[in-house]
Amino acid sequence: MSHALRLAHRSAHVIGPVERLGQRSELRHRVRSRVRPVVESRPLYTTAHGQQVGECDGDTYRAQAIHRRLPVFRRYSIVSHAILLGPMGGIVSSTPTWGCSLQNIVCFVSDFGLSDGFVGVCHAVIASACPQASVVDLSHGVPPFDIRKGAAVAATGVFQLPEAIHLVVVDPGVGGGRMDICIVTHRGTKLVGPDNGVLIPAAERAGGIAEAYSIDPAKVDFKAPLATFHARDVLAPAAAALACGVEPASLGQRLDAAVLEPGPFGQCRLEGTSCIGEVVDIDHFGSIRLNVTEREIEQIGSPSELEFGFGHVLIDVPMGTTFASVPNGEPVALFDSSGWLTLALNSASAAERYGVEPGASAHVGLRNHISARS
Amino acid sequence: MSHALRLAHRSAHVIGPVERLGQRSELRHRVRSRVRPVVESRPLYTTAHGQQVGECDGDTYRAQAIHRRLPVFRRYSIVSHAILLGPMGGIVSSTPTWGCSLQNIVCFVSDFGLSDGFVGVCHAVIASACPQASVVDLSHGVPPFDIRKGAAVAATGVFQLPEAIHLVVVDPGVGGGRMDICIVTHRGTKLVGPDNGVLIPAAERAGGIAEAYSIDPAKVDFKAPLATFHARDVLAPAAAALACGVEPASLGQRLDAAVLEPGPFGQCRLEGTSCIGEVVDIDHFGSIRLNVTEREIEQIGSPSELEFGFGHVLIDVPMGTTFASVPNGEPVALFDSSGWLTLALNSASAAERYGVEPGASAHVGLRNHISARS
Amino acid sequence: MSHALRLAHRSAHVIGPVERLGQRSELRHRVRSRVRPVVESRPLYTTAHGQQVGECDGDTYRAQAIHRRLPVFRRYSIVSHAILLGPMGGIVSSTPTWGCSLQNIVCFVSDFGLSDGFVGVCHAVIASACPQASVVDLSHGVPPFDIRKGAAVAATGVFQLPEAIHLVVVDPGVGGGRMDICIVTHRGTKLVGPDNGVLIPAAERAGGIAEAYSIDPAKVDFKAPLATFHARDVLAPAAAALACGVEPASLGQRLDAAVLEPGPFGQCRLEGTSCIGEVVDIDHFGSIRLNVTEREIEQIGSPSELEFGFGHVLIDVPMGTTFASVPNGEPVALFDSSGWLTLALNSASAAERYGVEPGASAHVGLRNHISARS
Repeated sequence: MSHALRLAHRSAHVIGPVERLGQRSELRHRVRSRVRPVVESRPLYTTAHGQQVGECDGDTYRAQAIHRRLPVFRRYSIVSHAILLGPMGGIVSSTPTWGCSLQNIVCFVSDFGLSDGFVGVCHAVIASACPQASVVDLSHGVPPFDIRKGAAVAATGVFQLPEAIHLVVVDPGVGGGRMDICIVTHRGTKLVGPDNGVLIPAAERAGGIAEAYSIDPAKVDFKAPLATFHARDVLAPAAAALACGVEPASLGQRLDAAVLEPGPFGQCRLEGTSCIGEVVDIDHFGSIRLNVTEREIEQIGSPSELEFGFGHVLIDVPMGTTFASVPNGEPVALFDSSGWLTLALNSASAAERYGVEPGASAHVGLRNHISARS
Repeated sequence: MSHALRLAHRSAHVIGPVERLGQRSELRHRVRSRVRPVVESRPLYTTAHGQQVGECDGDTYRAQAIHRRLPVFRRYSIVSHAILLGPMGGIVSSTPTWGCSLQNIVCFVSDFGLSDGFVGVCHAVIASACPQASVVDLSHGVPPFDIRKGAAVAATGVFQLPEAIHLVVVDPGVGGGRMDICIVTHRGTKLVGPDNGVLIPAAERAGGIAEAYSIDPAKVDFKAPLATFHARDVLAPAAAALACGVEPASLGQRLDAAVLEPGPFGQCRLEGTSCIGEVVDIDHFGSIRLNVTEREIEQIGSPSELEFGFGHVLIDVPMGTTFASVPNGEPVALFDSSGWLTLALNSASAAERYGVEPGASAHVGLRNHISARS
Repeated sequence: MSHALRLAHRSAHVIGPVERLGQRSELRHRVRSRVRPVVESRPLYTTAHGQQVGECDGDTYRAQAIHRRLPVFRRYSIVSHAILLGPMGGIVSSTPTWGCSLQNIVCFVSDFGLSDGFVGVCHAVIASACPQASVVDLSHGVPPFDIRKGAAVAATGVFQLPEAIHLVVVDPGVGGGRMDICIVTHRGTKLVGPDNGVLIPAAERAGGIAEAYSIDPAKVDFKAPLATFHARDVLAPAAAALACGVEPASLGQRLDAAVLEPGPFGQCRLEGTSCIGEVVDIDHFGSIRLNVTEREIEQIGSPSELEFGFGHVLIDVPMGTTFASVPNGEPVALFDSSGWLTLALNSASAAERYGVEPGASAHVGLRNHISARS
């Protein structure tokens, strides 16, 4: 049986053998430069759309999709979307890509803990409603009913994974009057959770609210939701629906962003060369995160040293890029993966040393400027 | 190349374009009503069996299975089972459905904790033995050797996910005389774990034991099991085998249900208008769950207020549907996702306030009836 | 449409109907004995390479790969790699195997905790960079900055899952001078982590270091890594690349093993009939693990009773195979799933009773030999 090594309906371009997949830059270069098709054994192909990369192996043609639009975390992804070329070169098979796009990753934050099965049941709901979805647990260690911590973890997650769908459930008012909502931000991030402010800081980190919708339980599941577990019966099914490509507008009624509950914390306030903010989070390593971003620090002049004020405690801290920028046990100020200004110690807990807790008000500014002001 | 827009070997029915997948009820309606086939661009198809929904896109035909029997948590699932129709309309390709059915979800409960890798190794065993399986962690925070808590979490999981396979490992007697067993309940739920009673309450919640089998290590793995880690070498492989479609009867010898160890707790006892039971679980939020179900409360008259008795402590509590049915900090009685009668506080811990622990005996009944009785 | 029930390019062997998949030993036997091909309805096939098992179902030929080289944990795996045979018997479709090989399982150990999203973000990175990979969390409960515990958990994981890729991140020096490295051991295990010794005990458990490479961030991601989060930007992408088949040598420069930082603990020292070692780990159940393997105990004569010495505390302990080898609360010495000599109590915590902590020095030997010696 002989096969024409070309695509009948789409033109093919050889870009290199499979063995070279590790040589990423060459591969990308060749995908971009669109070298002319060459027939050889075990070639890789790309279609005229520049989207298919294939391997010819005897009479079986395997191919893998390479994405031209390469978002932050999938820069070199060769994903498992396989196409098959028939004897005449036509595509006779195309298997679905599986869980390989951040668009169907559901980032899950809750105060459920890991001891009772609440989280697992939501995983099962999503797995059965949208098998293409991958659920990524960001945290279920938010203290019970702590909307502030839930909002902080969600905002950190959104900052790093803006393309994912974010499901955030810290919901003391479940089953009461509050709405279940879906927010779409100006950068396209989709957030699902209760309307109690827990989504707002994340929405602000992702460009602000562009659209908001109530979630109508009847649109995402057939049964009446259990009043104590909307996460299972409304919110997780809504996140699954989004992961499967359902439009946010299909979930319920459009809402005016002004009717939503405000977030548990906002952005810091600039006063001259100081930022007046608060502690939004203490992470697992004891690093203290403030609601201060690089923009504000740039506005006060990108100093090489900052003064932090927590009540009467003033601390002078050098700016650095990592914990090891200072000797062991010494403080350093940096922007970590949360994107928030962070006061950390090298290999120790800053929160413990300075006795600082989430929600504490904080001042940050040029040295000697805070003390003068307060 | 032209393509007949019909299935050669199976008849096809157009049920609507892919864009309408969000409009679930219409889709279901049309699947059920079996509209006549219509040839159009980008149609969805269902076979004569009513099980395939496809999309025609140029010369590639993609299809997705829609399940007609829609269990509790997959009501609107359009799963990723793709079929391909050839030029003459025959099915030329059918990719396996992936992890999208509750039948191959393995719910995992243990006292392993998350610090030592016991859980992860079992995940790896299942992933390699049955890649179709999705492992959902219900809890690994059961206190070491605490069969009662393991049984309570498993029973709650089974109550919500009766179609899944439940792997429950709280196993102080591992490697000793006790058997590894598989239970199939009258509702078809499959449970895998040690024969020390940890599966029994879950089996009772799912209709009672229909069949029970010992698990012969030689039937699920080739090597002799490590005496300290049957979860890895016997129980997880057995759950994986079930997830891959192996019949429970293939796992070992059939057992008489009467020989199994009894559960750590049973069902409550009705005495007039009171239920005499016990605290089976305290959840992460401090809610107190009793071995009392809706059936018993109906039998004592579905009162709008209940009296709970823990030893000498008597508490009058209104029945509600959710925590927010009462003001913040107030007690409410309700049926939560465990299906058990639960005494909770709105946004606070009932177990802490009333000093109640798992295993405590409890009375529930009409107001003033308990005090009169005791 | 008629189909020849044979493979045109590869010879096929019927080994039994799909219904018999549960009857594993027969299946394996027949795969091995290579019975002659027989044409029948719904047969299973294996190719001349002994690697394909298929089912004939009307005009659709489905097949599943069966692995002849059956590693420890996938002994009976029938995986979801489906092939399709065309009308003339040629393979016209082969869907990618999904997450079913230990080679693309990434075992993940860290001190990140589960409260802040660090772990979830790494999951998302790997899911998008290499969707074929399955991430298995071994532990994220390593205490912050505790290289010893991270190394112990990783070594236990490698001992049980040598074919997986192991990503180990306990990294107080992140972003500083230390390198990101990849180690390949003499048994083929691949380890990824910082060069601070955390990988070394695991490498030693897997045959010792065969090759080591620095990881060049530019080879695994396009953006500059964030100095505080190499796990996200360098180490997880490197593990994902390995899971996708990229060669370790493609990740960066080859290193001399002698330049790597030493591990936090080594192997024990034999002195006559005693092993001089240390406590490398206390597990979730309070079992005490020493850096003593079966080889050393064999060398001192495989005694039926051992004497453990922790400082001035001497304990005589019978050797057993499982915790239930002794009465409740009694001590037993055994080799658990870590492969290390372990001192445990039946259903209680040995570490608590004997007041032993990780890092403590320990002697083990024949009874009365330790006390005489010290």
